[in-house]
Amino acid sequence: MVLPAPPAPSEPCETVDAFHYGRFHLVQPKGRGHRAGMDAMLLAALVPDDATGRLADLGAGAGAAGFAVAVRAPRLHVDLVERSAFMAHYARRSIALPQNGALAGRLSVIEADVTLAGRARLAAGLADEVYDHVVMNPPFNAAADRRTPDAEKADAHAMQPDMFETWIRTAGAIARPGAQLSLIARPGSLAAVIAGCGRRFGGLEITPVHPRAEEAAIRILVTAIKGSRAGLSLRSALVMHDGNGHAFSPRVNALNNGEAFHPRLSSR
Amino acid sequence: MVLPAPPAPSEPCETVDAFHYGRFHLVQPKGRGHRAGMDAMLLAALVPDDATGRLADLGAGAGAAGFAVAVRAPRLHVDLVERSAFMAHYARRSIALPQNGALAGRLSVIEADVTLAGRARLAAGLADEVYDHVVMNPPFNAAADRRTPDAEKADAHAMQPDMFETWIRTAGAIARPGAQLSLIARPGSLAAVIAGCGRRFGGLEITPVHPRAEEAAIRILVTAIKGSRAGLSLRSALVMHDGNGHAFSPRVNALNNGEAFHPRLSSR
Repeated sequence: MVLPAPPAPSEPCETVDAFHYGRFHLVQPKGRGHRAGMDAMLLAALVPDDATGRLADLGAGAGAAGFAVAVRAPRLHVDLVERSAFMAHYARRSIALPQNGALAGRLSVIEADVTLAGRARLAAGLADEVYDHVVMNPPFNAAADRRTPDAEKADAHAMQPDMFETWIRTAGAIARPGAQLSLIARPGSLAAVIAGCGRRFGGLEITPVHPRAEEAAIRILVTAIKGSRAGLSLRSALVMHDGNGHAFSPRVNALNNGEAFHPRLSSR
Repeated sequence: MVLPAPPAPSEPCETVDAFHYGRFHLVQPKGRGHRAGMDAMLLAALVPDDATGRLADLGAGAGAAGFAVAVRAPRLHVDLVERSAFMAHYARRSIALPQNGALAGRLSVIEADVTLAGRARLAAGLADEVYDHVVMNPPFNAAADRRTPDAEKADAHAMQPDMFETWIRTAGAIARPGAQLSLIARPGSLAAVIAGCGRRFGGLEITPVHPRAEEAAIRILVTAIKGSRAGLSLRSALVMHDGNGHAFSPRVNALNNGEAFHPRLSSR
């Protein structure tokens, strides 16, 4: 009889990771749950430095995008909205890290399901028309395409067919008129994103993100303004790597590290 | 009393224009009706040189896109589908031009409204599942945004809200399984194009066209395959002008003049 190998006792089950050259840190689970990467940093780069008021980071996970905005936009309060108690726990612990002391007063966690509607949403702490910015990095993988073994990852990565409709409906409800919605998605979600914005958000600006100039886009960055009637713009792309190199292009590296943001073409 | 000035007697009411460095010519109305430009040439560039079988150019006008494909793809027969008798007349006269003698046997005109359905479509000469390629350059301007004074131009430029749904429905009906749909549209029509393709056409490949690298796209080039279940690709953009120059970039110039085509990434 062969006994199963015991778990390695020295394996840490979480990590503390530095972002933006150490300007903020996140406590993240290791080997379980979603870990933040460049998607969250590019999403954060859609919010301008001079943003004011309140921002909701919907599906915040451990808080990467919300933290990245908070570091750059000192006049903004950030609510990290996360339904998973497991991930919300890491968001709270990230806020409590000594390294994040200067930011902690401008970050809160709301443990709530983004898909709630009506009174249930209000009861969960997501009030009507209070946010000046809403950012979201919704789960990417279609429900039929789950390759993620653990439940927390599956939860973070599982995309329902009507997900953008539901998430953008909530964004529309909690955003003030004139507020900016910012999101990152796969190109295959283009139609769902546009349809979700519907009459809630207009003036869509879509920036494709290509690994290399000659390759197809792997992400789209989208901003839109609540109540705007302006048309859709398809902007010039961001290219992650110049030539054949493995380093990020200067522009993407700056966005990825909070040294620059990606301003809208139009304020309306 | 002031009499109105008589029309200038020497003003020609039509022109014969050379395209692709003289490889084909079109008779076009002057000052009335739609005149072909780069949109038709970029649309034509979506069809590969080695295409075979039959191609339908929906809303062909005087035939610019269909002619441009016929010149490059010698094994293809091209049906120019146009509902305006006025424009179909010019398409027929273009086919009859001595300069186009070598192409004439591979070009036909079907005077039919693309929006017909069912028996009316069949009766108009648009048969089920006979085309290997369908190309379309649908009217661009929203019906509410008519700035074109004359009726023929207004007809060519007026876009109905459900236009892409209707045109792509017809494309889906007349295309063989596995046939390629190619179209050019404004970025604002992205959602309508994707929705129109629906389950009829998959494997969408979208190429934005930007005037300059740093400016927003003014057109999208879209290809899709009938019956494909492949996902959507957002491809690297075509840029019309390098730097600050007024000349076309080498790539766009080659596409515009039939010296190259824009192949799909995937055949499915």
